[in-house]
Amino acid sequence: MSLNEYLKNNQSRQLEQLFELLRIPSISTDSAYKTQVRAAAAYLNDDLQRIGFSSSILETAGHPLVFAEKLVSPELPTVLIYGHYDVQPADPLDLWESDPFEPVIKHDAIIARGATDDKGQVFAHVKAVEALIEANGDLPVNVKFLIEGEEEIGSPSLNAFIVAHKEKLAADIVVISDGAMIAPGVPSITYGLKGLAYVEVQAKAAGHDLHSGAYGGGVPNVINGLAKIIAGLHDENGRVTVPGFYDDVVDISDAEREAFKRVPFSDEAFKEETGVTATPGEAGYSVLERVWARPTLDVNGISGGWQGEGSKTVIAAKAMAKISCRLVPNQDPQDITKKLSAHIKALAPEGVDVDVIDLHGGMPAMTAIDSATIQTAASALKDVFNKDVVFARTGGTIPVVADFQQLLGADVVLVGFGLESDRMHSPNEKFDLINFYKGIEASAALLSAFAGLK
Amino acid sequence: MSLNEYLKNNQSRQLEQLFELLRIPSISTDSAYKTQVRAAAAYLNDDLQRIGFSSSILETAGHPLVFAEKLVSPELPTVLIYGHYDVQPADPLDLWESDPFEPVIKHDAIIARGATDDKGQVFAHVKAVEALIEANGDLPVNVKFLIEGEEEIGSPSLNAFIVAHKEKLAADIVVISDGAMIAPGVPSITYGLKGLAYVEVQAKAAGHDLHSGAYGGGVPNVINGLAKIIAGLHDENGRVTVPGFYDDVVDISDAEREAFKRVPFSDEAFKEETGVTATPGEAGYSVLERVWARPTLDVNGISGGWQGEGSKTVIAAKAMAKISCRLVPNQDPQDITKKLSAHIKALAPEGVDVDVIDLHGGMPAMTAIDSATIQTAASALKDVFNKDVVFARTGGTIPVVADFQQLLGADVVLVGFGLESDRMHSPNEKFDLINFYKGIEASAALLSAFAGLK
Repeated sequence: MSLNEYLKNNQSRQLEQLFELLRIPSISTDSAYKTQVRAAAAYLNDDLQRIGFSSSILETAGHPLVFAEKLVSPELPTVLIYGHYDVQPADPLDLWESDPFEPVIKHDAIIARGATDDKGQVFAHVKAVEALIEANGDLPVNVKFLIEGEEEIGSPSLNAFIVAHKEKLAADIVVISDGAMIAPGVPSITYGLKGLAYVEVQAKAAGHDLHSGAYGGGVPNVINGLAKIIAGLHDENGRVTVPGFYDDVVDISDAEREAFKRVPFSDEAFKEETGVTATPGEAGYSVLERVWARPTLDVNGISGGWQGEGSKTVIAAKAMAKISCRLVPNQDPQDITKKLSAHIKALAPEGVDVDVIDLHGGMPAMTAIDSATIQTAASALKDVFNKDVVFARTGGTIPVVADFQQLLGADVVLVGFGLESDRMHSPNEKFDLINFYKGIEASAALLSAFAGLK
Repeated sequence: MSLNEYLKNNQSRQLEQLFELLRIPSISTDSAYKTQVRAAAAYLNDDLQRIGFSSSILETAGHPLVFAEKLVSPELPTVLIYGHYDVQPADPLDLWESDPFEPVIKHDAIIARGATDDKGQVFAHVKAVEALIEANGDLPVNVKFLIEGEEEIGSPSLNAFIVAHKEKLAADIVVISDGAMIAPGVPSITYGLKGLAYVEVQAKAAGHDLHSGAYGGGVPNVINGLAKIIAGLHDENGRVTVPGFYDDVVDISDAEREAFKRVPFSDEAFKEETGVTATPGEAGYSVLERVWARPTLDVNGISGGWQGEGSKTVIAAKAMAKISCRLVPNQDPQDITKKLSAHIKALAPEGVDVDVIDLHGGMPAMTAIDSATIQTAASALKDVFNKDVVFARTGGTIPVVADFQQLLGADVVLVGFGLESDRMHSPNEKFDLINFYKGIEASAALLSAFAGLK
């Protein structure tokens, strides 16, 4: 049976298996889901063993990793496929049209938390190696899988794991599918990722919540104070006011500016996709330039005081905001976190005391687009999709990319099978059925093409 | 048996009864507690009937009112005692040292939600009329009780009720105990109250929550936008920026300024009581002047995006803030709400759409301190507390005061038995035992003194 025939005959079984994996609420950000996170690791471990991989669940200080390998020959290149089986929380639950952990098919797409980020994409690779073994008898290259359970909390254990297991992980090429192609049916390879510096601001002004009638006007209001801090983080040109924030930023080159203009992107489609009525931001840069290649600062959450039904005339004692910066080369997350923390403290009004807690960070990364690995991958993808590959950057962060480049010396190929409109991290997350099946086909094509590289 | 003997002999029973009332979680702001709100009304209605009042539970569009009367003689003045049996929510629950609805005695104070606001205070009046009847055979004046269940949601049914039942409610004097005395053991009569304009701001920017990596920098961030609006509501001198906000403000007179200086108030004690490290506010006014006699604007609550454990890299689609202004004579809540709403909309940055919802309002009020009613009350209180009465204003709002003055033509006497430090609306709300018992004694003395006024 040819690979194509095998793939055609096994679609419904592959989908059923993905549904089983999606049903496990492996929410890594919430410690209440610890058992379910481990259950998702076990599911992948079992499937990889069944296929013929030497696979095991490896402990970390937090959620475990799945590491699997099938080594064919030392003469052949080794490809490490990285992905993650943990998912974001499903909140706000009331905006989901179906249970986030009971996948359904709607408009030819799989609807579930984790469908595209990243269970659906990493599982496409697992089903690709299964197909290669079943159809051809063995793999065209040595393949390793490293599938973690802490990506959504910033991969706190991963860097130490890679440092400690450099030999076990040794690879020529790393393939990662944890993002989006530029447009439906248009294969894309991402050569630049943003980094991340994420903090929580805890503000405090009074010893306890106060009655706004008895004390209003006499005491500092911590929510008004927090709002003032946040408002002070951008200037009137949409630039971040943190001193030194732009010091290490590699600006967009003229060549990149030209390349960005060839990307199938329109502000109108972007507005439609996001539901926004305007696209304000840093002056002097297009929307695509800002999202892909300029550092940004966003409040991700805020809370304080009375949030329930009706009115409560209270002045809160404390308030909280989660604030993150997306970083570009060569900004350093630790440096930016330090500068951001100092600036937040400097902006705090009289009587408002702030603590800034470093929640997590990730390095930005860039890959050479003229390397043999990237060009070979582009050629293989063109054959599967029958369309030229678009080279892109992204505003997303995969901190491990910098680790793979620096610690393993591997070329990293970022091939997203999802779409930007897949509602990653949002209610009604989806993964188009065609992208799941094309993902399996593309993974098999990439592994076969890489065989010629050593 | 003399009144004093009766009061001395009945303290433990009076306290037990108050505990029974405090155990009923009559939270009017949360519709989930509808049944319990009604149970608190029934408790008071039963007790007033037992004492010998003609009492009934009267329906409104929302929570019911308790109306009771015992008319002794048309020759005697009629005193209407107003209070409320509903309470604020108990959140945040984790800051309570004991169950908010299981009263305990700690440091000679009753600890429970509603202990001072307003169950403990209104119940002191109920126990006072009971004592007068038991000790003297009848009341010295005609007494009516109007005890509502919607004070904490802005008394939405009360104004219409008073308009519709002006004859039933007819009274010469209205007595209200829903506040604090100026200091422990110092009797106080409040002659000025602030009004209130309370709105909810609902801000929206995107069609759904967005991944901050995929979209950050390209879309308006609704939380950053809401923070910018809030930060724009005060200027650098702590003044509210809403155009026309101060137009109708009656400024503090020189005589009042002098009287305020004689009030036993210190900024240091205020800081200790509230736990604040600074007392910023409108420039040119003392803390007491700002709290008692200057209009203020405070955010009472805010929420948006990820508020749970850890980090979520999301750009929220919407965010919410509850904002209220405390008003002074002659500001009008409807006028201020209109001006505030327009200003909030004007401050909204590009791409952030805001709705401003009027949650509730109340008129500010002032009483003549040289009226016979107030002077008689002051004299009676001086006898009970053995100390000169302090005349005060307050930042709190009791919207019904303006109604009683305007619709019934009654003199309104505001006599608080609580303390500012009783943590009204906050965790561990308390009511000192001595203030409960002194409150009963003072109520009996006031009613007896008012007998000579007609």
